Amino acid sequence: MTNRLEQALGHRYSDQSLLLTALTHRSHSWPHNERLEFLGDSILNGVIARQLFDCFPDLPEGDLSRLRANLVRQESLHQLALSLSLGEFLRLGDGELKSGGRQRPSILADALEALFGAIWLDAGFDAASAVIVRLYAEKLATIVPGQPIKDAKTRLQEALQGRRLPLPKYSLASTEGEAHAQQFSISCQIDALNIRTQGSGGSRRAAEQMAAERALEDIQHA
Amino acid sequence: MTNRLEQALGHRYSDQSLLLTALTHRSHSWPHNERLEFLGDSILNGVIARQLFDCFPDLPEGDLSRLRANLVRQESLHQLALSLSLGEFLRLGDGELKSGGRQRPSILADALEALFGAIWLDAGFDAASAVIVRLYAEKLATIVPGQPIKDAKTRLQEALQGRRLPLPKYSLASTEGEAHAQQFSISCQIDALNIRTQGSGGSRRAAEQMAAERALEDIQHA
Repeated sequence: MTNRLEQALGHRYSDQSLLLTALTHRSHSWPHNERLEFLGDSILNGVIARQLFDCFPDLPEGDLSRLRANLVRQESLHQLALSLSLGEFLRLGDGELKSGGRQRPSILADALEALFGAIWLDAGFDAASAVIVRLYAEKLATIVPGQPIKDAKTRLQEALQGRRLPLPKYSLASTEGEAHAQQFSISCQIDALNIRTQGSGGSRRAAEQMAAERALEDIQHA
Repeated sequence: MTNRLEQALGHRYSDQSLLLTALTHRSHSWPHNERLEFLGDSILNGVIARQLFDCFPDLPEGDLSRLRANLVRQESLHQLALSLSLGEFLRLGDGELKSGGRQRPSILADALEALFGAIWLDAGFDAASAVIVRLYAEKLATIVPGQPIKDAKTRLQEALQGRRLPLPKYSLASTEGEAHAQQFSISCQIDALNIRTQGSGGSRRAAEQMAAERALEDIQHA
């Protein structure tokens, strides 16, 4: 039954128990996929880093980092998981099943990472790399270097709008240092979610982005 | 002259220009090592993840993550860089040279990551993995699973004590949710550095750790 998934992934697991574990949520049974997810997350980061490095020889490190963050975040993994119909193959506990676990973005994204980690164990780094590169080919092909990537403030705004919540409030918490080397602290406040984060940086904009990034983390962990 | 460094690393670069770039700080000239550092950071994370996964089959994902964070952070890389006498080989601009750049932990740690990335390009993943595993052998061997790893609060305390600064102040910013599923927000304040961060979590302890982690980041970026 998992044949279809292996076909979609483009990898046949020699050790089928690895595949089974990668599909097993912690609510179902042990061994579950959390350790494999840890491994898969790390190889995904490495493979995407290398792809971006090779494809965009002129981009500075900061842009590569932002592009990668964009490609490996939950939302992107969730889209790929949907394209593989991964939800059908998940092994979930009853509670998770009833509450719609098969559709939950975090569960799907984690399981996809676990599948990558399982390929690394099953057939080596290059095999896992090939699968990741194939899955990401379309996303990688549509990257236009220089095109602005959605920054944290934009993504936070979209995340709140998606929940029909008001926009976050940014305010200056403090400034420090002499005029030519000031450090700004900005706080980002989302009253509806009782979230308040703070970011710092050499400009208001940089500080706001850090605060927004942290607010996004808080929303994801909430 | 870089022969000694290659010997210490255990890798002879076929493409010596990669080695040169890895040793070049942005204050010196272009191409500098920031793109290679991005690549090296990612392979370092992957290789250490795999080592921990293989060495500690019983550790849950959270412990693996904490162990890895401990191994790949600047302090650990700095120690390894010192063991390679990496500082002697760095190419720094005049300003950095005069202000002690050869000894700066962040410059040394970044250059070591760049050297890893350069090996990946020069000779493939397995070659880079072998170098990393060899360098980290001692650190990996001394890990006793189950032994508590220094948590963020402890590390923050040590960082402040090292600077002879007072301890941070933690205070409850807010609680949210019903009694059985409360979310705590804790703020961490370091007056001497004008740093104030916030963390959230399902327990006061978890929220404090997140706030401490962010304060550590702020200190590093400051």
